[in-house]
Amino acid sequence: MNEPHPQRAVILLSGGIDSTTTAAVAREQGFELYALTVAYGQRHAVELDAARKVAAALGVARHVVQSIDLSAFGGSALTADIAVPKDRSTVEMGEDIPITYVPARNTVFLSLALAWAEVLGAQHIFIGANAVDYSGYPDCRPDFLRAFETLANLATKAGREGKLFHIEAPLLMLTKADIIRWGWRLGVDYSLTHSCYDPSPEGLACGSCDSCQIRHRGFVEAGVPDPTRYAAST
Amino acid sequence: MNEPHPQRAVILLSGGIDSTTTAAVAREQGFELYALTVAYGQRHAVELDAARKVAAALGVARHVVQSIDLSAFGGSALTADIAVPKDRSTVEMGEDIPITYVPARNTVFLSLALAWAEVLGAQHIFIGANAVDYSGYPDCRPDFLRAFETLANLATKAGREGKLFHIEAPLLMLTKADIIRWGWRLGVDYSLTHSCYDPSPEGLACGSCDSCQIRHRGFVEAGVPDPTRYAAST
Repeated sequence: MNEPHPQRAVILLSGGIDSTTTAAVAREQGFELYALTVAYGQRHAVELDAARKVAAALGVARHVVQSIDLSAFGGSALTADIAVPKDRSTVEMGEDIPITYVPARNTVFLSLALAWAEVLGAQHIFIGANAVDYSGYPDCRPDFLRAFETLANLATKAGREGKLFHIEAPLLMLTKADIIRWGWRLGVDYSLTHSCYDPSPEGLACGSCDSCQIRHRGFVEAGVPDPTRYAAST
Repeated sequence: MNEPHPQRAVILLSGGIDSTTTAAVAREQGFELYALTVAYGQRHAVELDAARKVAAALGVARHVVQSIDLSAFGGSALTADIAVPKDRSTVEMGEDIPITYVPARNTVFLSLALAWAEVLGAQHIFIGANAVDYSGYPDCRPDFLRAFETLANLATKAGREGKLFHIEAPLLMLTKADIIRWGWRLGVDYSLTHSCYDPSPEGLACGSCDSCQIRHRGFVEAGVPDPTRYAAST
């Protein structure tokens, strides 16, 4: 344990556009990928299937799905019985912290990624955090990610011994269109990914939640065909 | 969600001496206790029974047992198939980071506590971290706890809105004997607690792992009868 493996990286992989593109970027940089998906009691379990398909398509060295029941704590439209907002304007989305905010989600996810990274001897943890389209989420901001990196190096045997961890968020300041263009160049198959907060029982996207709207506009702005299967036309 | 409830506190409760005493201290300070136990694939599942008994004895408002399979990541004597060291001297225990170190454990635990605290509107998170007897663990040190508090206030909606979180580790600089004396004065029933890293199938303490030795010496030095049921005489 803890022997450094500089070519290894842990990737938080939700199966959405951002984490999938981030994984493709990490692979392009030469890392061997260890993909971590957290099943946190989210309503959209179809995300997990997307994560598995993406992990297979990217040829990751290992994919771990870790289950946590965040719904035991309650408190978010993604885990509790609160309606997902639909058909909101960009201005409405930009106001305040969204109801879809899951308390401390990225802190929990990064902590688990850190635990695995230390066991693997990996010093790089990739996360698809984005401060542009998700500006309402406190745990997608640069100062949060820097604080987590500081914490990681105090929290671990590896960090204390100078084998420093790096939190990599290559998409942090990109628009959705930028992200899609980058992934497109890297050959990402976005038909495998999933973004909808409120999919149909068959796993089709609703087309009207914030996440569907941001996703669809991203494809349009990037000039890339949207491969998403929608339950209703957008 | 997020309405402040200043009387509420989340307590990380393992069922050992330190977390149990910490919970008693928090209750003495007037907090309503929300106890969080993390089942992380540890060998000593008897800890979970101890946590349940302690939570009941303390009259907590709610006890959540959250399961995480840290053993999926491997890498520690507490979760993987590595022998727990026995009969080590105090000097040996003090050298280096113990093999029983679980990567990023307190980071993961505190992250989950933070998620729950934010939902509850609680601003205080209590942890039984101790920098004296567990000096080898990087995530039991003051600088780690301060860094986590900083992170918590960047990571959350509540923190960003100025409803600041406080990480409380009242035992941080106390010896095991100090801790036991404090708990004894508060009426803690230590017969409910469990410390052993390698209990018998019936849940009896081995008496010779680091944790058993530290525990037993604590009772002796505190001048408090040791109520532990040992599989072998110490």
